[in-house]
Amino acid sequence: MMPYFSETFGNPLSMHRFGAEALEAVEIARGKIAKTINAKPEEIVFTSGGTEADNLAVKGVAYAKVQQGKNIITSPIEHEAVGNSCRYLAEHGFDISYLPVDVDGRVSAADARAKITPKTVLVTIMHANNEIGTVQPIEDIFRIAGEKGVITHTDAVQTYGALPIDVKAMKADLLSMSSHKIYGPKGIGALYVREGVDVVPMMHGKGQEKGKRAGTLNVPAIVGFSIAAELAVKEMKKESKRQTKMRDRFINHITDAMKGIKLNGHPTKRLPNNINLSFDGITGDEIIKDLGRHGVAASTSSNSNVLRIIGVSGEKATGSVRITLGRETTESDARHVMAMLQKLVENARKRY
Amino acid sequence: MMPYFSETFGNPLSMHRFGAEALEAVEIARGKIAKTINAKPEEIVFTSGGTEADNLAVKGVAYAKVQQGKNIITSPIEHEAVGNSCRYLAEHGFDISYLPVDVDGRVSAADARAKITPKTVLVTIMHANNEIGTVQPIEDIFRIAGEKGVITHTDAVQTYGALPIDVKAMKADLLSMSSHKIYGPKGIGALYVREGVDVVPMMHGKGQEKGKRAGTLNVPAIVGFSIAAELAVKEMKKESKRQTKMRDRFINHITDAMKGIKLNGHPTKRLPNNINLSFDGITGDEIIKDLGRHGVAASTSSNSNVLRIIGVSGEKATGSVRITLGRETTESDARHVMAMLQKLVENARKRY
Repeated sequence: MMPYFSETFGNPLSMHRFGAEALEAVEIARGKIAKTINAKPEEIVFTSGGTEADNLAVKGVAYAKVQQGKNIITSPIEHEAVGNSCRYLAEHGFDISYLPVDVDGRVSAADARAKITPKTVLVTIMHANNEIGTVQPIEDIFRIAGEKGVITHTDAVQTYGALPIDVKAMKADLLSMSSHKIYGPKGIGALYVREGVDVVPMMHGKGQEKGKRAGTLNVPAIVGFSIAAELAVKEMKKESKRQTKMRDRFINHITDAMKGIKLNGHPTKRLPNNINLSFDGITGDEIIKDLGRHGVAASTSSNSNVLRIIGVSGEKATGSVRITLGRETTESDARHVMAMLQKLVENARKRY
Repeated sequence: MMPYFSETFGNPLSMHRFGAEALEAVEIARGKIAKTINAKPEEIVFTSGGTEADNLAVKGVAYAKVQQGKNIITSPIEHEAVGNSCRYLAEHGFDISYLPVDVDGRVSAADARAKITPKTVLVTIMHANNEIGTVQPIEDIFRIAGEKGVITHTDAVQTYGALPIDVKAMKADLLSMSSHKIYGPKGIGALYVREGVDVVPMMHGKGQEKGKRAGTLNVPAIVGFSIAAELAVKEMKKESKRQTKMRDRFINHITDAMKGIKLNGHPTKRLPNNINLSFDGITGDEIIKDLGRHGVAASTSSNSNVLRIIGVSGEKATGSVRITLGRETTESDARHVMAMLQKLVENARKRY
């Protein structure tokens, strides 16, 4: 990214040499990103991140198709960028249908088929859930949507760079990606928009990105994103296998060692890096704080709609701890955190 | 910015230590930006750039005030981010009133007063024009709007860091800024939103920026933007004086030396760095290309609505060349470009 902050600082829109150099860097990056998902370069729209990509997809298709119908099918456990875009649309005359989710947080193609009506213009289902890690049967759902002429969008922010993505095999018309989730810079993401699919832009201006997203292109971030994407895809197979093994060992060991633990999300159809556990009788917040004091950065899902919806209710929901494995997490790190987590949970339980 | 790309990589939303460090950096930056325009830190909303800030201001206020009225007052020579946001609103049931501009590209407070109706909810006028450099009488217009209870927005992307800005003295309720125009990184900007002013967000998601703009905060860019802002404001008085002198010398010398030249925009109420000239009988494009071959990056305003609107029509409009002075432009650079421009124009004229 570095040269694009200083010597190659141009605006891709400018007619002069500095502009041309910046434009070339952007187009090379666009080609790299496109290649990682089996898309054409001109089908990649750069955005300021995953949230913007999701907003552009959901509201962009809704408003582009408003003459045809106002029904959108989604799940109740989408990321807030999709969930709150749908809520906004519901307040503005759209009809949002929610697919039921099972105890593992999965939606089904059969339910999707049953919900589609002639007024359905979009099916938006995340590829994998950010809290509980469950991977959805996207291909099955999108095949049915496609047969009925309904546009399909998936928020792939959690899976991009972690699981293989082929927009054609998935039958996705739109797909959201984020750079900082794959060790790239913040402030940049992309929306794949299949050729021929219309979206009403959110950003009006000079008409960059073929009119789909105005604003000066963030050249250094775009370059950084494309390199991060190449690296992630190159390492994906090996890294995904390594993390899956580490994840399953962690889950198996801790559930063997202690009572009153529940794994949230699907046991196998699951993000390689995601461990989400509920501990009977204690809150997630206090375990997170205890872990933090020992230098471990984990997340809680207290007040989580996702957990409530999959039926982990009341005390159990407040006791959920999410541990995310990363490229730099070693087996020894994982063992260390597991032992620490076990001890902290046992101590916390004694306090009651 | 550098540490925030690597060691301090956290998401300000995260509960753990990495999140807290990132959040602290963002809040320090927010305070710095606020200080440069006499605002409170909580009145600064970070966006992906000037385009997003303008879109959020114009559409955000329009939709927030839709129950009260649908009239918006603007000028016909706004940047496309405001201009096309207004056009979008016009297609969706809003009524856009355009103030007349004089030959120098200025709008007047008297015209603004005459256009305001009980249905007017927003006056949006740019602080200075990006093509012709003309500075608008913002304070006068916004005082009148304020007296009538109308929300005021100015696109200050061109003036921020170049001219003193005090949102209270200007009576601005909203003000757009961009980082890369002040030598900061691309992909970041901000919208000042006065306390108590509502905007409907464009980005729905996790509710960052007090619900006004969702999306993971771009920590390194925010930090870089704040440092660039501090530097720009620190150097502003000296640099603005230096550039104004250089600009006027350039304009005076070249208009003395040649016939058939017109300065576009106001002669004195003008951005310190902006030179926009029309040359009788030749096109801007060819001069830009000639300059480019000699290593000078300039811009043309061919097909410019701004020039057509201020009455530089037909051949003259196609012959406009914009030269922008920068922090690194020396007197010797300016003399060199002036001599070159004169020669290139003379040669081009001989070809006809």
